[in-house]
Amino acid sequence: MAVSLGELAVRFGCELRGDPQALVDHVATLANAGARSLAFLANPRYRPQLTATRAAVVVLDPQSADGCPTQALVCENPYATYARIAAVLHPAPVPVPGVHPTALVAHGARVDPTAQVAALASIGAGSVVGARSYVGPHCHLDEGVILAEDVRLVARVTVCRGVQLGARVVVHPGAVIGSDGFGFASERGTWLKVPQLGGVRVEADVEIGANTTIDRGAIEDTVIETGAKLDNLIQVGHNVRIGAHSALAACVGVSGSTTIGKRCMIGGMVGIAGHLAIADDVVITGLSLVSHSITQPGVYSGAIPLEEAHTWRRLVARFKRSGRLESRVKRMERAAGVKSGLEENHD
Amino acid sequence: MAVSLGELAVRFGCELRGDPQALVDHVATLANAGARSLAFLANPRYRPQLTATRAAVVVLDPQSADGCPTQALVCENPYATYARIAAVLHPAPVPVPGVHPTALVAHGARVDPTAQVAALASIGAGSVVGARSYVGPHCHLDEGVILAEDVRLVARVTVCRGVQLGARVVVHPGAVIGSDGFGFASERGTWLKVPQLGGVRVEADVEIGANTTIDRGAIEDTVIETGAKLDNLIQVGHNVRIGAHSALAACVGVSGSTTIGKRCMIGGMVGIAGHLAIADDVVITGLSLVSHSITQPGVYSGAIPLEEAHTWRRLVARFKRSGRLESRVKRMERAAGVKSGLEENHD
Amino acid sequence: MAVSLGELAVRFGCELRGDPQALVDHVATLANAGARSLAFLANPRYRPQLTATRAAVVVLDPQSADGCPTQALVCENPYATYARIAAVLHPAPVPVPGVHPTALVAHGARVDPTAQVAALASIGAGSVVGARSYVGPHCHLDEGVILAEDVRLVARVTVCRGVQLGARVVVHPGAVIGSDGFGFASERGTWLKVPQLGGVRVEADVEIGANTTIDRGAIEDTVIETGAKLDNLIQVGHNVRIGAHSALAACVGVSGSTTIGKRCMIGGMVGIAGHLAIADDVVITGLSLVSHSITQPGVYSGAIPLEEAHTWRRLVARFKRSGRLESRVKRMERAAGVKSGLEENHD
Repeated sequence: MAVSLGELAVRFGCELRGDPQALVDHVATLANAGARSLAFLANPRYRPQLTATRAAVVVLDPQSADGCPTQALVCENPYATYARIAAVLHPAPVPVPGVHPTALVAHGARVDPTAQVAALASIGAGSVVGARSYVGPHCHLDEGVILAEDVRLVARVTVCRGVQLGARVVVHPGAVIGSDGFGFASERGTWLKVPQLGGVRVEADVEIGANTTIDRGAIEDTVIETGAKLDNLIQVGHNVRIGAHSALAACVGVSGSTTIGKRCMIGGMVGIAGHLAIADDVVITGLSLVSHSITQPGVYSGAIPLEEAHTWRRLVARFKRSGRLESRVKRMERAAGVKSGLEENHD
Repeated sequence: MAVSLGELAVRFGCELRGDPQALVDHVATLANAGARSLAFLANPRYRPQLTATRAAVVVLDPQSADGCPTQALVCENPYATYARIAAVLHPAPVPVPGVHPTALVAHGARVDPTAQVAALASIGAGSVVGARSYVGPHCHLDEGVILAEDVRLVARVTVCRGVQLGARVVVHPGAVIGSDGFGFASERGTWLKVPQLGGVRVEADVEIGANTTIDRGAIEDTVIETGAKLDNLIQVGHNVRIGAHSALAACVGVSGSTTIGKRCMIGGMVGIAGHLAIADDVVITGLSLVSHSITQPGVYSGAIPLEEAHTWRRLVARFKRSGRLESRVKRMERAAGVKSGLEENHD
Repeated sequence: MAVSLGELAVRFGCELRGDPQALVDHVATLANAGARSLAFLANPRYRPQLTATRAAVVVLDPQSADGCPTQALVCENPYATYARIAAVLHPAPVPVPGVHPTALVAHGARVDPTAQVAALASIGAGSVVGARSYVGPHCHLDEGVILAEDVRLVARVTVCRGVQLGARVVVHPGAVIGSDGFGFASERGTWLKVPQLGGVRVEADVEIGANTTIDRGAIEDTVIETGAKLDNLIQVGHNVRIGAHSALAACVGVSGSTTIGKRCMIGGMVGIAGHLAIADDVVITGLSLVSHSITQPGVYSGAIPLEEAHTWRRLVARFKRSGRLESRVKRMERAAGVKSGLEENHD
């Protein structure tokens, strides 16, 4: 779809430096843009590519605009503006109302006439598919699943019994929502299954990545609050609550009964122990272990970047003999008649 | 289903402090229980909620019973007793014998007349589905798969050719059992696939979580022994053996040809290298790296909890310059004429 | 299938020490081999089993051949030779041309007459399935997917719109190729979805493990180059490029816009941050964090092996008070009038 720069400037509140009649019809990277391309600059890492770009127009902020060799759409948040324009130039598919002849809708399930149920999907008894929602191919909704309006299950999503998904929730292929939590009671050296009787409540505007798993609560519900975004291959244990507008990168694991606050950002492969509370506005960098609750907003880290292997082995060896070094220092302090310096500021 | 406290006390060997005629009909948390609720107290973390609970009855141990403001079912293992009572109040679904008209059962497959095969499931030639087993919607059993009795494949489970699942095995959605192991021979800078010819043998009473993957053996079988419990998103490499009644938390990775003993407990995101042997009764806390065999039972750890980011950066910087600190200490020792203290106890 | 040792020696360029007429009909481990078994020795770890093996013949290298108590096929690369022989003795299934009656092929999709589409698979409009390719049961190809020749999608694979898979690509169950990347623009405390408009290009001879997820590019394509091998439960973010013949072990996470060079080997659970470049011929051991680009080939590590828990706790405590130790050493140096030794070689 071709759109004029003038129309984009007006719709998205940008200052246009260029010809309002000029047309763009697709997005491109700065490096590979052409005469009908719209590109953007948001990450300063890509600034060097700006000089040589052949885009028709670049979306960027006022600080970068003077260095732009092409037409420009200038705004305060170029990444967000780019996102909106991209959605205009490349509109998302919309549901085609109806149930595919190979889809199964159980007696007593209710599919809104504006919703689409794709091939080989199955919908259990008592389930509800809301207005304009899309149940993609090979999806399975068990009994009593509730999808609000404008939900999009891309393909091959499993939603277990009684799970509720709010408006505009998007779920990617392979995700499993509402599997049993990992609840077993130890008894004479074996494990006895604890029935997992709660559900999962996913609020509006949540997005859930491919092959992510969200367990149902043991007694009450696991809850993903409004606008939270979960990347791929994430594990969310039973009874967890993830706060509104928090974003979790791929491969994160959140153990059972932990609460994550609002607007948190959790880096990839972070592991969070169970029964913890993480405050609002906490940022955790990748591969960290969270073994205690976090009560203050801020940035937290817990991983050591890799080194060339022979350097790393020496570092690990020193770490493992750190007790010896402490003892040596203590002995010298005793010999020298100094105290061990507990009172010193060492940070 | 409503049950009297008297009946529960008798069936599960509890001391009842309260009215044997009183009825409960569902389980609830201590915090949200009501007049017909049964709650439990097993984790001391939740003790403060006991005082204010409005449950009809609480399952707890003798030490906690005196502080209980309501009726009580007193027993030595309240979590296990709770699990058994919850299964009475909220019975699990039982298979409805028969094959759904949209399911495919290949010629030469055998489905016990008491088993259920749900919608859009497919069962390959030579496979056997045992008595009272349940093959959920969208499951795929390849050729020669053997399910013993009372197996439950919840939904969308993939069981590859020749895999055997023992009695009462439960598998959650998205799990893949019997995928090819990661076997490639290096040859002139490229990789040559090594045929993966073994199978997977899952013994009785094993539970396998959502989106967990278990690779078939290269030549012989990968084995999951009786009663082992695997959480979600776990990777089990080829030729691995996981011992009876071991429990693996989510996101664990077990590399090929490693053996884990019986009654082990492996925390979330633990990574275990290949060709190792881990003894019985080993507990490993979350996010640890296991790069050597473990020969003694005990508790093992290997992760450093996160810190506020600016503190963490200083810690990492010091770690990386630890060689310099050792050198400085050594120089002072030389200057002071002391030995480096290898003989000291530094632990 | 029974094959003579003479034929194997000729076909695979081995020196035969034994009877050319002797037959083998299956592979086995050294430990469990019998009179018609072919075994191999490649990993020195298994050398002790050679002495007692009852195999008909062992494939091994010249250095080990003298210690072999049985007939031997001697060659320089016994693991690769074993792989080729195993593929002869246990041939992989070949596609049976045709479309299963329960499979769905959209109007405008093109399935080569030599290809097989298995039960309950679905193929979207504009997709192409090349010669001798196999689309396994429950697979879903969205619109515009291109499979070259001899592709094998084992079962339940999801290939999203427009994804291209090269010749001889193998994909295991549960993998998702072409899911949306994790792209959201921050705007007034909430997240705005950035349309993910690129595709995924998987080149020839790539293998992709069970439940692995590969995101489509944001604007251009995510690329997996020729011969790369990805194990199970791996996450590949948008715009990533994985170089030819690189091998990634299970549970690795590669964040968006990172490039991995050719012939790299990435250990299990390694986490790689976004927007990095990793050189060719880099080896990274398991559980490492890669937070900066790597410009030189070599071996890199970043994880500390676990310890008995009480030892580990002391190590962590010392790590966290390392600043105090530095201060104590500095104080002693000042007292002794020595410099802090920056010039010393401490590695």
